[in-house]
Amino acid sequence: MYLEGIATPADVRALPAQAMRPLCEEIRSAIIATCAKVGGHVGPNLGVVELTVALHRVFDSPRDKIVFDVSHQTYAHKMLTGRAEAFINPELMGAVSGFASPVESKHDHFSMGHTSTSVGLALGLAKARDLAGDTYDVVAVIGDGSLSGGLAFEGLDNAAELGTNLIIVVNDNEWSISEDHGGIYANLAELRATRGHTKDNYFRSMGLDYRYLENGNDEAVCEEALASLRGCDHPVVLHIHTHKGLGFAPAEENEESWHHVGPFNPETGEKLSGGRASGGIVITPPATYADITGEYLLKRMASDQQLVAISSATPYMMGFTPDRRAAAGKQFVDVGIAEEHAVTLCAGLAVGGAKPVYGVYGTFLQRTYDQLWHDVCLNAAPITVLVFGSSAFGTTDATHLGFYDIAMLSDMPGLTYLAPTCREEYLAMLDWAIDCRRGPYAIRVPGAGVVSRPSVEIPDGGYVFGIPEIVHEGTSGAAILALGSTMPLGEKVVALLAEKGIDVTLVNPRYACGIDFDWVCSLTDENRVVVTLEDGVLDGGFGSHIARILGPTNARVRGFGLPYGFPDRYEPEDLLNCCGLTERSVASEVIELLEETS
Amino acid sequence: MYLEGIATPADVRALPAQAMRPLCEEIRSAIIATCAKVGGHVGPNLGVVELTVALHRVFDSPRDKIVFDVSHQTYAHKMLTGRAEAFINPELMGAVSGFASPVESKHDHFSMGHTSTSVGLALGLAKARDLAGDTYDVVAVIGDGSLSGGLAFEGLDNAAELGTNLIIVVNDNEWSISEDHGGIYANLAELRATRGHTKDNYFRSMGLDYRYLENGNDEAVCEEALASLRGCDHPVVLHIHTHKGLGFAPAEENEESWHHVGPFNPETGEKLSGGRASGGIVITPPATYADITGEYLLKRMASDQQLVAISSATPYMMGFTPDRRAAAGKQFVDVGIAEEHAVTLCAGLAVGGAKPVYGVYGTFLQRTYDQLWHDVCLNAAPITVLVFGSSAFGTTDATHLGFYDIAMLSDMPGLTYLAPTCREEYLAMLDWAIDCRRGPYAIRVPGAGVVSRPSVEIPDGGYVFGIPEIVHEGTSGAAILALGSTMPLGEKVVALLAEKGIDVTLVNPRYACGIDFDWVCSLTDENRVVVTLEDGVLDGGFGSHIARILGPTNARVRGFGLPYGFPDRYEPEDLLNCCGLTERSVASEVIELLEETS
Repeated sequence: MYLEGIATPADVRALPAQAMRPLCEEIRSAIIATCAKVGGHVGPNLGVVELTVALHRVFDSPRDKIVFDVSHQTYAHKMLTGRAEAFINPELMGAVSGFASPVESKHDHFSMGHTSTSVGLALGLAKARDLAGDTYDVVAVIGDGSLSGGLAFEGLDNAAELGTNLIIVVNDNEWSISEDHGGIYANLAELRATRGHTKDNYFRSMGLDYRYLENGNDEAVCEEALASLRGCDHPVVLHIHTHKGLGFAPAEENEESWHHVGPFNPETGEKLSGGRASGGIVITPPATYADITGEYLLKRMASDQQLVAISSATPYMMGFTPDRRAAAGKQFVDVGIAEEHAVTLCAGLAVGGAKPVYGVYGTFLQRTYDQLWHDVCLNAAPITVLVFGSSAFGTTDATHLGFYDIAMLSDMPGLTYLAPTCREEYLAMLDWAIDCRRGPYAIRVPGAGVVSRPSVEIPDGGYVFGIPEIVHEGTSGAAILALGSTMPLGEKVVALLAEKGIDVTLVNPRYACGIDFDWVCSLTDENRVVVTLEDGVLDGGFGSHIARILGPTNARVRGFGLPYGFPDRYEPEDLLNCCGLTERSVASEVIELLEETS
Repeated sequence: MYLEGIATPADVRALPAQAMRPLCEEIRSAIIATCAKVGGHVGPNLGVVELTVALHRVFDSPRDKIVFDVSHQTYAHKMLTGRAEAFINPELMGAVSGFASPVESKHDHFSMGHTSTSVGLALGLAKARDLAGDTYDVVAVIGDGSLSGGLAFEGLDNAAELGTNLIIVVNDNEWSISEDHGGIYANLAELRATRGHTKDNYFRSMGLDYRYLENGNDEAVCEEALASLRGCDHPVVLHIHTHKGLGFAPAEENEESWHHVGPFNPETGEKLSGGRASGGIVITPPATYADITGEYLLKRMASDQQLVAISSATPYMMGFTPDRRAAAGKQFVDVGIAEEHAVTLCAGLAVGGAKPVYGVYGTFLQRTYDQLWHDVCLNAAPITVLVFGSSAFGTTDATHLGFYDIAMLSDMPGLTYLAPTCREEYLAMLDWAIDCRRGPYAIRVPGAGVVSRPSVEIPDGGYVFGIPEIVHEGTSGAAILALGSTMPLGEKVVALLAEKGIDVTLVNPRYACGIDFDWVCSLTDENRVVVTLEDGVLDGGFGSHIARILGPTNARVRGFGLPYGFPDRYEPEDLLNCCGLTERSVASEVIELLEETS
């Protein structure tokens, strides 16, 4: 086995050319075997095996620097840079991150998981090299799906101007997460059809040098093309055509559903249930909030022509399967990977009288801060944003943490951020938000699974007044505000305290942002202790807001929430434990504060 | 005078063709006279007079919808849509906003002031129109400078795919705020040189239809070109060439310094001092933080080849005049309007070993939330961000508020946000941040003018420990934490209370984000009242953070900061008054809380 003998890229370079085909086969088998066991980005990684081998034979990493966009396609790169063991030893499978990681290897220059950053990062490395008077090559590898992100355009545009050595490999596999969206994809298709010779070349229009390579899954031709660019004195785009999922029939046949998967049977491709997959987007089975959302929206579209669902390349997440997309027709728009535009488009839609509902992962929503503030909130544009994966139970990679959402959306004047505790409340809130024309709404889709709470109180006047639901009125002088998906924890704490004879108030705040100021102040009428629970970062989040309002009063306010930082590949239960978001820890804090103030 | 007779665009359409030249002259004179009196965007507005008249003769606003990018060039549009009085009656000059405003007129569809949003917003309007089965035209007017923003690219790319009626007028005056930057500007130059016939057309590469118009300052030809596009069934780019500053010699000769100005002599162009200009970027005279910054950085560059200053189209703001830019050479990079790329580039530079210093207005920094979080903080990349205009004394238009910065940067794990109280401390912090390789720094450049405080304590070990400066140690049990530019207010409050026999502690927190947790807790050893002052939004800001930390203690915590919302064209003193950021209000709150807890 060649792979076992590869400790550094120098070992790859030392192999004869005829070893490349079997080496690539070994890598491909290792990808399939590993993903079958622990899940992962099957399709993207199978497509770039030959390219990656060629990169490491031509360039001298880490002196030469290779930056993979998103870095979800770095499995082969990891195998060739000292980390093969994690892909061939069943006991170590999953031991390395699914993304680039400078902690793991000096061949990985950045932790990254969001798209479209590679050209800018690589350009920064190239400029730093020039300032230091050094001469190594810098390579960015970016997929076609990432090109629709404005940040990638900004990087290409600036690279053309700075005019220094930078090799930009456009890995064109004809797919984003779902199908590609945007005008430039027609250009890429023409470039493929003409072998790079079409008029109006997108890359050349920015002043970039450009080469086309048809067979991006032929290691030898990749190597030859890359070698010809080594040491070049200007930025150049090498557009290569690859086959997503190559070598695994199920992934070749259904690119969308094999972009990222959980464990599966490597013989048949049958997907296995159970086991939360780390690393990227998990396609969720039915009876999830994805399905609840897709079903609700599609049904409502039939009677409401102004309703339009917007996705930025993750339609599955909001339940828009290919069937539902087809059924929605013009009432569904996938803008491709372009979160900022998605939000700005929603502002235009809302001002124009339509009812846009944008579904997005919390971690990617971060890219739209300014669009939410300036395009949506400043204009009080009535849009609805559904925030998925914002929870300790979302994706657990540091690159994809979704739980800074409340802190971020707290900066949006006039935006109401609702946090439903259960399925019934989620649907009531969604129903309300779509029709409410008073301003923007976001809804924090519960991250810890679908919970039913038939007793939940749906307010008659809708969700505009910022008034929480009193779930239980206690007598002990302490109140627990259990936001959204922390309600089951709140219920448990109340029960535990009741066993000890302490009767505490339990509140469903409903509003992660937008809670009524006077209502919060009125908490001190009956309570001298206020405890907040949230499945989001504590600093700047819901609890901080409550603490700020009650700061000048005599109430003691203690917030429980997720830690401020970048926990990586964590176990959700461990994370909750370490920040005290457990029944025992919260209960004992309540007791202590009650005693201190009695 | 034609202008006096124009109440609606219908009045423009009713005029004979031969009235257009004198009407344009009237508009131009009104722009010059108004800006001479109250300041404004002289150059951009003078360049689009003919285009604007033509737009209102061809399209039927507000049924047809025109969206101006940034909307800093809407003076002629305002004059033709019922607001001419504000430009011709000296008593009303400045009565309308410098930007589009739906509150002012139904011809303005969005409040806006940040760049590159127009295509996305207009596309949203167009899609809403299609969903409603309506048929009006939608027009976006975008300047060449705004095209370097990735959001504009995302909008163009998606427009090409949605394929509906949308007329995108690219107003090419060959300038951003400073000179244009980025590879596409060579393409625009070629398109101008070839009258639209170059190979590799940027717009066509995305699949957009494209027309070129050379004389964009000829009203008749603009009208003809626009009329030919009316009602078209697909998106089309009309690239027109205009002359920034046309009709006012000083502005024609120096486009950069006449982009936005304060009051001036309309005969000579001599700029008058005094009077804070509202609306956009104010070019500041010497002895400002701009000049201090530019002087310091340029001097240091000579002995530090790794130091590189980055701007996103606002080099003046950080003191990089054309002379300093020339002197800095390769150590200065203007990426054009592309804030996101600027930050991602900085991450690459820092990881590559360079020392990037990025100067940016706080309001535009908003666009980089995800890049700061994911590219910079996740990688602990040692960059320095200088945040300008984040203050009640920054730009006072709702579109350009800069004072959400602390709330935003509080979400960035590992980023240290320093808030200097004076010039001496600013320079010490800047000096420290550039060399510190432990992670990212941002510095909140004081917004309320340059203050000297020779007694300021510069910590020996640098700014890494999160420990504040105790300016005065009091005995009354109350402490005032006066962040950054609120230190003079803090000093006054302390003096006022001293007169009443109350000796309070005064603290310079130094850290807007990154203050030491234990140090904050230790405040309660000697104090039962803690008051925070900040020249930033209170919610989610510095004071909220202190309140959260001290929530479980018996201390009373009262924060004073700016209101959460979109105050527009406000008087800074009024804003400070309304949120209690005054000597008397803070002092009386301290007294009250001391009494309540005694």
